[in-house]
Amino acid sequence: MNSKIYELTDLIDKDLAEDIYTQNERKELANRIKPMLSADAIVLAQANPIPGNVKYNALKAKKWINWAELLGVKTIIFPETFLMGIPFGDYMLKFPVVVEECREWLEAIAQTVKNTKVIIGFVEFNNSDKGKKYYNSVAVLSDEKIERIVRKTLLPNYSELNDYRYFESSPVNSQNRITDINGRKAGIIVCEDGWNDFDFFDRNLYNVDPVETVVNEQHPDYLINCSASITRAKKEQLKHNMLSFAAKKHHTPIVYVNQVGSADCVSYEGAGRIYGKNGELIYRAKSYEEQFFIADVFDCNGKIYPLPNGLEKTLNSQKEFTLDHEPDLERTYKTIIQSIRDYFKKTGFKHACLGLSGGLDSTVCAVLLTDALGKENVFGISMPSKITSSESKNDARDLASNLEINFLEVPIGDMFNVTREKFDNMFSQIEEKWDFRYKQSFTNDNIQARSRATILWGIANEFDRCLTIATSDKSEAYMGYATINGDMSGGYAPIADVTKTKLFALAKWMNENREQKNAIPQSIIEKRPGAELAINPKTGKPLLAEEALMPYEFLDEIIWRVENLNQSVNDMIDAEFLYEKENTLSKEQKIEWLEKFFRRMSTAIYKWSILPPSPIVDARSINKAEYHQPIVSSGINYKKTSFEEKLSMLNAD
Amino acid sequence: MNSKIYELTDLIDKDLAEDIYTQNERKELANRIKPMLSADAIVLAQANPIPGNVKYNALKAKKWINWAELLGVKTIIFPETFLMGIPFGDYMLKFPVVVEECREWLEAIAQTVKNTKVIIGFVEFNNSDKGKKYYNSVAVLSDEKIERIVRKTLLPNYSELNDYRYFESSPVNSQNRITDINGRKAGIIVCEDGWNDFDFFDRNLYNVDPVETVVNEQHPDYLINCSASITRAKKEQLKHNMLSFAAKKHHTPIVYVNQVGSADCVSYEGAGRIYGKNGELIYRAKSYEEQFFIADVFDCNGKIYPLPNGLEKTLNSQKEFTLDHEPDLERTYKTIIQSIRDYFKKTGFKHACLGLSGGLDSTVCAVLLTDALGKENVFGISMPSKITSSESKNDARDLASNLEINFLEVPIGDMFNVTREKFDNMFSQIEEKWDFRYKQSFTNDNIQARSRATILWGIANEFDRCLTIATSDKSEAYMGYATINGDMSGGYAPIADVTKTKLFALAKWMNENREQKNAIPQSIIEKRPGAELAINPKTGKPLLAEEALMPYEFLDEIIWRVENLNQSVNDMIDAEFLYEKENTLSKEQKIEWLEKFFRRMSTAIYKWSILPPSPIVDARSINKAEYHQPIVSSGINYKKTSFEEKLSMLNAD
Repeated sequence: MNSKIYELTDLIDKDLAEDIYTQNERKELANRIKPMLSADAIVLAQANPIPGNVKYNALKAKKWINWAELLGVKTIIFPETFLMGIPFGDYMLKFPVVVEECREWLEAIAQTVKNTKVIIGFVEFNNSDKGKKYYNSVAVLSDEKIERIVRKTLLPNYSELNDYRYFESSPVNSQNRITDINGRKAGIIVCEDGWNDFDFFDRNLYNVDPVETVVNEQHPDYLINCSASITRAKKEQLKHNMLSFAAKKHHTPIVYVNQVGSADCVSYEGAGRIYGKNGELIYRAKSYEEQFFIADVFDCNGKIYPLPNGLEKTLNSQKEFTLDHEPDLERTYKTIIQSIRDYFKKTGFKHACLGLSGGLDSTVCAVLLTDALGKENVFGISMPSKITSSESKNDARDLASNLEINFLEVPIGDMFNVTREKFDNMFSQIEEKWDFRYKQSFTNDNIQARSRATILWGIANEFDRCLTIATSDKSEAYMGYATINGDMSGGYAPIADVTKTKLFALAKWMNENREQKNAIPQSIIEKRPGAELAINPKTGKPLLAEEALMPYEFLDEIIWRVENLNQSVNDMIDAEFLYEKENTLSKEQKIEWLEKFFRRMSTAIYKWSILPPSPIVDARSINKAEYHQPIVSSGINYKKTSFEEKLSMLNAD
Repeated sequence: MNSKIYELTDLIDKDLAEDIYTQNERKELANRIKPMLSADAIVLAQANPIPGNVKYNALKAKKWINWAELLGVKTIIFPETFLMGIPFGDYMLKFPVVVEECREWLEAIAQTVKNTKVIIGFVEFNNSDKGKKYYNSVAVLSDEKIERIVRKTLLPNYSELNDYRYFESSPVNSQNRITDINGRKAGIIVCEDGWNDFDFFDRNLYNVDPVETVVNEQHPDYLINCSASITRAKKEQLKHNMLSFAAKKHHTPIVYVNQVGSADCVSYEGAGRIYGKNGELIYRAKSYEEQFFIADVFDCNGKIYPLPNGLEKTLNSQKEFTLDHEPDLERTYKTIIQSIRDYFKKTGFKHACLGLSGGLDSTVCAVLLTDALGKENVFGISMPSKITSSESKNDARDLASNLEINFLEVPIGDMFNVTREKFDNMFSQIEEKWDFRYKQSFTNDNIQARSRATILWGIANEFDRCLTIATSDKSEAYMGYATINGDMSGGYAPIADVTKTKLFALAKWMNENREQKNAIPQSIIEKRPGAELAINPKTGKPLLAEEALMPYEFLDEIIWRVENLNQSVNDMIDAEFLYEKENTLSKEQKIEWLEKFFRRMSTAIYKWSILPPSPIVDARSINKAEYHQPIVSSGINYKKTSFEEKLSMLNAD
């Protein structure tokens, strides 16, 4: 495809986003593009819907379709269930009126479709008296009618995916999946239907491979996969290899249309693409941007937009823990930026306030918010207590000044004192009735964290469309090292799925790669993390997080082994940690840290359940949109015990 | 069965719960019971496991098995996946060691099983290279071996149920489901496998009825259903009718063994039972209690323990909203009591503190906590502000005194003032940068609610194994009428699935039915609810909730219609509400209230996502263990629009 065309379609993207043209200007632009189009040109509609907001999605689709018709391309292809939006929700079951609306909007759109075939996902009623209420379907619209409806066969129900909760699985019905596009036979596949190749995967979730069935029975000229595929660490490599493998194996090009945008916790990165019949990548759309992407399956000189930097490099599936996070940092950054932006936009919020402690977590959050929302929409509040060092105060102020965000210092000493005084009095009265008072407690630490959250929520209550930000990170969430109604609390938690060692790397990366260099003061990156809520009696200085927990390098490797290798305590005792290669570590100390990890993790489950929404970034997460564990399962033993031990316990009575 | 036997097995229950006997005393008691046992006597092991705590569950099972062997009964039957515990959790995927442990404990138990056949649920690895990782299985243990393993076919994935996330569906394999018990052929069914009768249900979720397959192919003498069936409003009637229908239709008795106990949000009520071959109920175990329940399928003179009062009466599936909640009150009460008790016990907590406002919500919570945990373990804190009336203060004190719980009055004026002063200063500074300050805000209201939560969490931080209690109710949760980090905040939320009108009824019911009569001061039941956080400028008195929202009677009917009839706004405009029968209501006012409901509900989704765990009680709930909705779907339109409107919007450009 003539690469000049992409300069012009960038203007279409701008018009779709901001309505910059009159109808005449559109026609004019279309007339400039038309001569460059080949007969088999198609459009991958890489668009960002809003879950459940069918009207918004339908009117948006219509704008994209109008552009396709103006250009006279043969087809425009939207992602999976574009009309309903995704991720799905129980509102579909509770308010079937929304699904009725979805069907009606589809029919209304169909009536307006003239020369360009439209392939678009929606949610359909299952009218049978058996099975789930709905189908996850793709409609082909042409000549003012619904030409056909293709129903999804394979229904994922793992991680954040929940298709089987709502949808009935359809037989493959290969013949019905074929539609004619400019005299070519295109076979339609719906997302997961394309992810069950028996040769590619060691283990298959399902017994059918719809791709194989369609190819073998119908011999299509190419396949179209309408997807809504979530970005995760290590997923790009898997996706690329699998799609390439399938195209080559079946000697059939694959057009992969993917959604872009974020919704609560899940993010879709776009990067729709086409693989040629030898498995070669011939087109790839932009990542993390909406795009009206023109391509031609039969023209191998395609445009290949870059993936986020480093991504392709790392993606040899990582078998060992490493502190070299670099290859995944741009993807991480872009995922979080898109997540913040879409969360605010789709819920109608505009402004954010957050506490600036001068520590790493709040610093990284502030930079991300600035880039996602604009500096004028961010308010950083430094809320020092008696324990806060002057260095921290200065770091917070410097950061705000570098970022040019709004800034205020609001000391919390008075709130702390009045609460502390009240508590002293109250606790001694309670102690008369309850004699189980702790000798050492976190009460004072938590008063500080809660006073700060009270201030931030006060701002959110007082100012229009303002959301508070929770600054918890993933390493601390695993350890429950966060205060309920304190730093854990907020309307959104941008970094809750980023471990501490990765956060350090991200901070450095942002200092190097953002337009404005070195916005983060070096001292913030260099200092060792600590909440500055308590004094360590041993050092006389504010307690460091690693003193309370364990070295972050070790902690993050435990998390990595749990999430990526599903290891038990015993497995980890036997394994060699990166930390051990570089430090002396006794077996006793190692076991102590491992046991501390599992003990703390077991009692952190409640905290996970009330964490605000946050972007899922890693390969696995404890985000509640993905990970479910009963809080009362805190007694699980993550260690293996011997069979003999079991027998002897059973025979003890 | 001789009813005398149940007096004696009550002693077994006591021994199982509290280890009251020596081994010799056990033998003695067994010898008294044995002569009363018929040859076909079996035991329904209505026991309460802990999710994931395989060791606890295995050792518990063993104690029950020991009793069965002492008695020499032919079989003891445990509920579904008893060894793993239920509800399931992603820990099974993340830590496969737990599933390995489950299998090993099963094998170890098998080696100790002698004369009594043991039928017990567990989680099994799927060793095939296709499908989900696990099976939901029931093992039959006999003669020191695993005699057979029956795998579940139908995998529910709705409401709180998530089987399909973890388990592969097995073909019915009817022959393998038959085990010999004392020369009789018993066919084993696993929970949902028994819930797909094609004649009973108008709509079936699955295409197979394992009950029919087993009966038709194997002609068993009776069926055994190992269940973990969750209690919900209106479910008992459905369950009774269905089991009775199936027994009669197949002319085959059904033994239904059910779990008892609660875990986080879900509750199992026990009430295991046997239906004879004509569909007649011949045995029923206790509700909401662990029970070693002896029965005999072939002896129709069974013991039938009562269901919670009123339950059978109401359960003719209710087609209209009513304020007569009476028939479901004892079940509601028992569900919440069991939920609180098990949540505390299974997570290792013992004491609770809560704010006592003198209002209905905190009052009902206090009574429930007293009954669940014991009065000495409850601390009620009255935290009056300037707005709090002396009547409210007195009501709180009287309630605490009646309940004999610990009580303290801790005024919050000083916390409020210091925060308010800080806010005044801070807001005017912020206003210089952000000009979107609300003229009227909830900021002051929320300072009060948050100061109170800070006090309660302080107590929980300072005193051993103490949990704070969130007092939000269901009507207010729907409306988002609760303060983040305020009354919404807590370790557990006992009444979050109880609507306001039902709470009033529950309060009256408790006054009449608890051992201690009228513990709740009449004035609390009579006063109209209000948070006493703000003054209504129109009345000069504290703002009432119904002034801010709408009449609770109307609000609760909307909720009822949404949850039970899945109605849209349009459906409700056309329907006649109970409130309309008794009050004059203009169409404009009705539409205004309906629109307010959907507007407020749409922005409350975030609050639902951070609500603490709470018992699911109603037929449907917004508890996040059951109900999932993306927060960004706040733009859903719950109204139907006409096709013409849609067409004209599409053609607008």
